[in-house]
Amino acid sequence: MPAPIARLHRIPASSPDDVSGIISLIRTGALDPAGILAVLGKTEGNGCVNDFTRGFATRALRDCLAAEIGSEAASGVLTVMSGGTEGALSPHWLVFERAQAPVGGKVGLDGGSLALGTTITRDLMPEEIGRTPQVETVRAGVLAAMEAAGIADPADVHFVQIKCPLLTSARVGEARARGNSTATADTLKSMGLSRGASALGVALALGEIGPPDEARIGTDMSLYSARASTSAGIELMGHEILVLGMSDRWEGPLAVGHALMRDAIDSDSVRQLMERLEIGTRADVVAVLAKAEASRTGHVRGSRHTMNEDSDLSATRHARAFVGGLLAGLVGTTELFVSGGAEHQGPDGGGPVAMIVARRTVFPRA
Amino acid sequence: MPAPIARLHRIPASSPDDVSGIISLIRTGALDPAGILAVLGKTEGNGCVNDFTRGFATRALRDCLAAEIGSEAASGVLTVMSGGTEGALSPHWLVFERAQAPVGGKVGLDGGSLALGTTITRDLMPEEIGRTPQVETVRAGVLAAMEAAGIADPADVHFVQIKCPLLTSARVGEARARGNSTATADTLKSMGLSRGASALGVALALGEIGPPDEARIGTDMSLYSARASTSAGIELMGHEILVLGMSDRWEGPLAVGHALMRDAIDSDSVRQLMERLEIGTRADVVAVLAKAEASRTGHVRGSRHTMNEDSDLSATRHARAFVGGLLAGLVGTTELFVSGGAEHQGPDGGGPVAMIVARRTVFPRA
Amino acid sequence: MPAPIARLHRIPASSPDDVSGIISLIRTGALDPAGILAVLGKTEGNGCVNDFTRGFATRALRDCLAAEIGSEAASGVLTVMSGGTEGALSPHWLVFERAQAPVGGKVGLDGGSLALGTTITRDLMPEEIGRTPQVETVRAGVLAAMEAAGIADPADVHFVQIKCPLLTSARVGEARARGNSTATADTLKSMGLSRGASALGVALALGEIGPPDEARIGTDMSLYSARASTSAGIELMGHEILVLGMSDRWEGPLAVGHALMRDAIDSDSVRQLMERLEIGTRADVVAVLAKAEASRTGHVRGSRHTMNEDSDLSATRHARAFVGGLLAGLVGTTELFVSGGAEHQGPDGGGPVAMIVARRTVFPRA
Amino acid sequence: MPAPIARLHRIPASSPDDVSGIISLIRTGALDPAGILAVLGKTEGNGCVNDFTRGFATRALRDCLAAEIGSEAASGVLTVMSGGTEGALSPHWLVFERAQAPVGGKVGLDGGSLALGTTITRDLMPEEIGRTPQVETVRAGVLAAMEAAGIADPADVHFVQIKCPLLTSARVGEARARGNSTATADTLKSMGLSRGASALGVALALGEIGPPDEARIGTDMSLYSARASTSAGIELMGHEILVLGMSDRWEGPLAVGHALMRDAIDSDSVRQLMERLEIGTRADVVAVLAKAEASRTGHVRGSRHTMNEDSDLSATRHARAFVGGLLAGLVGTTELFVSGGAEHQGPDGGGPVAMIVARRTVFPRA
Repeated sequence: MPAPIARLHRIPASSPDDVSGIISLIRTGALDPAGILAVLGKTEGNGCVNDFTRGFATRALRDCLAAEIGSEAASGVLTVMSGGTEGALSPHWLVFERAQAPVGGKVGLDGGSLALGTTITRDLMPEEIGRTPQVETVRAGVLAAMEAAGIADPADVHFVQIKCPLLTSARVGEARARGNSTATADTLKSMGLSRGASALGVALALGEIGPPDEARIGTDMSLYSARASTSAGIELMGHEILVLGMSDRWEGPLAVGHALMRDAIDSDSVRQLMERLEIGTRADVVAVLAKAEASRTGHVRGSRHTMNEDSDLSATRHARAFVGGLLAGLVGTTELFVSGGAEHQGPDGGGPVAMIVARRTVFPRA
Repeated sequence: MPAPIARLHRIPASSPDDVSGIISLIRTGALDPAGILAVLGKTEGNGCVNDFTRGFATRALRDCLAAEIGSEAASGVLTVMSGGTEGALSPHWLVFERAQAPVGGKVGLDGGSLALGTTITRDLMPEEIGRTPQVETVRAGVLAAMEAAGIADPADVHFVQIKCPLLTSARVGEARARGNSTATADTLKSMGLSRGASALGVALALGEIGPPDEARIGTDMSLYSARASTSAGIELMGHEILVLGMSDRWEGPLAVGHALMRDAIDSDSVRQLMERLEIGTRADVVAVLAKAEASRTGHVRGSRHTMNEDSDLSATRHARAFVGGLLAGLVGTTELFVSGGAEHQGPDGGGPVAMIVARRTVFPRA
Repeated sequence: MPAPIARLHRIPASSPDDVSGIISLIRTGALDPAGILAVLGKTEGNGCVNDFTRGFATRALRDCLAAEIGSEAASGVLTVMSGGTEGALSPHWLVFERAQAPVGGKVGLDGGSLALGTTITRDLMPEEIGRTPQVETVRAGVLAAMEAAGIADPADVHFVQIKCPLLTSARVGEARARGNSTATADTLKSMGLSRGASALGVALALGEIGPPDEARIGTDMSLYSARASTSAGIELMGHEILVLGMSDRWEGPLAVGHALMRDAIDSDSVRQLMERLEIGTRADVVAVLAKAEASRTGHVRGSRHTMNEDSDLSATRHARAFVGGLLAGLVGTTELFVSGGAEHQGPDGGGPVAMIVARRTVFPRA
Repeated sequence: MPAPIARLHRIPASSPDDVSGIISLIRTGALDPAGILAVLGKTEGNGCVNDFTRGFATRALRDCLAAEIGSEAASGVLTVMSGGTEGALSPHWLVFERAQAPVGGKVGLDGGSLALGTTITRDLMPEEIGRTPQVETVRAGVLAAMEAAGIADPADVHFVQIKCPLLTSARVGEARARGNSTATADTLKSMGLSRGASALGVALALGEIGPPDEARIGTDMSLYSARASTSAGIELMGHEILVLGMSDRWEGPLAVGHALMRDAIDSDSVRQLMERLEIGTRADVVAVLAKAEASRTGHVRGSRHTMNEDSDLSATRHARAFVGGLLAGLVGTTELFVSGGAEHQGPDGGGPVAMIVARRTVFPRA
């Protein structure tokens, strides 16, 4: 049986609904739409509450996938749209494809290749959001996605992207009708709690922490995962989970690694990651996924920042532009998937960075 | 006669009018107010038209200097306020002081030390702004400031900071009353023309270009200085010019160098500058002054950016945050003097970067 | 033969792509989709360059209409999306339907009823945009739409809504390839020129002005139409024109009138319009369409405004919020179609206002 | 003994620090600086956290007053700076002066004249902010200011402007050091609680409510004053209180009245106020002071607004522009003191409006 091989297509978008690049790859045979596991989109809205570029992009992508592989198959594709291409960041799609390695010639590398796994968890009840049942549900989901990816050791997981639910007034009302209260009645706050609880679920699955007290969700930022990236969306009550790791069951030239930025100017961690990944030239970098946020302390290495006091511009927009510039300087491209909202995803003011690279040296199969 | 020595004090500001750090240095004797040649302030406004933090900072600074050294002496201090601490950039003052080196022990270095020179040019007539007379006036001014700094060779100049005039409706009217027309009647556009003509004056003085055709001012962006940083202010009709360079007539551990960023992600140029300056640790970096702007092409190394189409957020704010992040990752601090409006200051989308460092090894005087 | 009757459905939208209200009216029989002539949408983006809510709304509306009446018929429906619901303005759709009056009972009124007419002009060449050929093309188009509406006298026309083309870099290039130049090479500026030339075409058709000198397009704001509302879109090279007027060939309780606001606080003109329309209660007001803009003088009745100097917030957003508040106070609802970009549409700082009302007294047919 | 007479000077400002209009009135003798009780400034910043136009204006005003009447007298003048001139609102000063009526001729009116009273309360401890002691302190302060104004009946009070304190991290720490907790540790939230508690103090003093449960402060918006306008500032720990009312102990042509807007489009209440005040022409309106805010329900009279979801633009800016437009349409000027942050100041989404008018008919003293 042929081994799986992961392909990652980074495709520019000229507008939120521009799927022409995806269609073009399908037409030329470079991308088999039936193998698409997940699509991440970096869109040019503000990345905040009234960012409609995410919905616009999702609609265009769904229409495109449905036309190519049918509505049912399309509905199985994990999609995460993240708004905000501040600074010189560039709108693009990341299409994760699971293909089959050619038989008879090993294209993988010593130490394995990039492995992909996805899963969708059960729907939560509103009263579970931001609480221990969500942490547990995500923990189990991450383990399931690892299994789907053929990864046994949590140390081989380098990034977990999750789309998680949020509370609406209607959902809060449903819980109340059952005589239950929700973790919060504030819908905006519920996004942070859901992102945070999901990140702690990742941390638990990967052995980064033990089972956390419920009271620490959203409050104790010393608890975090160095490999989680979570975003909340109104369109689901479960979780869509994508695991990126290394596995010797997979073949192909792609590899993934991760770094943890300790603060917003921690370039050293990323540079060390690039060394670990033995990048020949910057052109070997296929994709970068990172979380950025303004530190709650109001300082970066002792110097005051003004992101939290800027009433004209959301702190998340500031942070994406700034960390985006740092990363672009390091890897030499502006097509970077930098997103905000990093509760329990790295330490306060810092965040996880994953890098997917194409290794040059491919050994012939013995 | 003792040799001059340049001191540069980088002082955090907790608000636009916070001069307490400056006063504190004066009180402790670390800063002699009589020796202050220039003060640059990076303030936390939007850096655009309605940024009143610049005026607020100027008022506080002027009051402080007048109290310390009298109004007349204070009026001779060159002051440039630049708004915009996007991303994690941190509000701060840069106070340039000319002191006297201790007699009997050379504290300078082989290759000389940081040298400072300032000058103020004659007032322009409104009809001269953005035209050849402005280029010529600045050229002569830069040469005068070089002489004040004791720098003979233009190759030893690494940065020229200029505050230049702009047109108002009243000034346009004055010219008309004389039967003359101005380069533009659009006051906002006049800021760009004045910055551009001033930058070309620097380029001419430093031998980077020959005398430019007037028609190319503001239009032909292939003409530029790699060492100019200009900003327009309503409060003057002449130019305030600060030259930073290296001179063996000066002593002290400070040195200055410059790089030219070719585009918004050109970290290599800055890294090479740091190597040339033989920086031991990042703590040796005393100050960074840089210009940042969104490329007019709408692209950075082939990837689209969205800065020019963002109606919610000025492109200048995007660019400062992004380039600020890149520079902060390299030098390890967020107290960086990054400003926008880079007409004829480096190529489209790029810009000059000056770095002032404290050298460790100081040779004893023979 | 039964007389035509105009229906106007004002439908709230809970998001840019929310067409559920339209579908609901179709399902209940209150709206016959085959009779839809035009749909105007007020969406919640910033109304400026990077407002993707317009495209998102258009996509959702087109999909909805295609599902109801087929793609071909749907393509004949005039659609104008206008972004910007600043202040308490409320996102909504205005669906204009041409139906047939019941036979045997006159439902119209003395003085006629609201009449609707639409037309689509020929495509312009890029070099015609913002110039006399565009003025002429729109003039002819308005006359054609009047004929379609059964309106002979220009005095019976109260509002003309137009979607007009703009220049892109590619279109400028096409003209150049033919050896021709365009009115401007600045794509943003081309929007204003196209809106302005279209408005002058309306003014010419309605006899408000004589044929204007080409040099006055975009420059001489003393030339204007008191009944034009134009917006530029990238998706067409011709013009989509909707004429609203009064005609005794039409029946039904709806009537339309217009006022000209002389400045941003000219409530008297609107109040007088309400008196002319003999509105019983505010509930009789079915729709309000208005243009709002910041005066170029920087003043309103002698007092300075700050809209043109606010680098954080587009002047068009300020103006829509402000005029929206004034109008909402008068008519008692926030579902108002207030849009910006008013070149040659009313005097500087002012703009046209159309009001469509449901008259109470309906006379029996003799 | 001559009776007091209130003068109110409305003076345009060309920038936040433009006090030239005030100085000019003093020079011409129209304003006696020794009689200044309070100065309100409407400045052109964003009115939010990083609005430095308030501090800039305060510094310029303080310098001006100190030069005119000395630092000590200047420190007794109540000053309230309110940022935000959205839409066409116009930056201006309102200078309240207490003068002496000419002896021998009654210039007052039947029903009394505008009366002014100010007071400054004791400093609060941080742990008192947003709690019952603050409500009580303000209640007592309002009564003291009424007495200073010579107003006995709370029904004669039409507006109470208050500047109140807020919490900083340092102040929260002080309370903790005493073993006490503060109402909140969130400094932004403390501003709302302080404004709210101050407004309830006004309501209590004026008999609009009975003593409120502490738990209802900041939560139960059905409790409110129809005559309070409060704003929080970092520079004080007490309260500066200005009472505006009617008293027959005062003379002069000025009168004040108030309306309560029930929602953001409640123009009827304001129109009825204008009728009650028997305004001859709009030119009789000397000043309008109003509070505006976005309703928490997200609706205005059943229609959705988008102010609370707009991440690009603070809801307070939207609300000021919108209500400003409504009021400007009614009174015919854009120099209106509209401010935001209306906790317990009118019902959710509505707010108090005070109008000061110059009555035409002045009776001769008997």
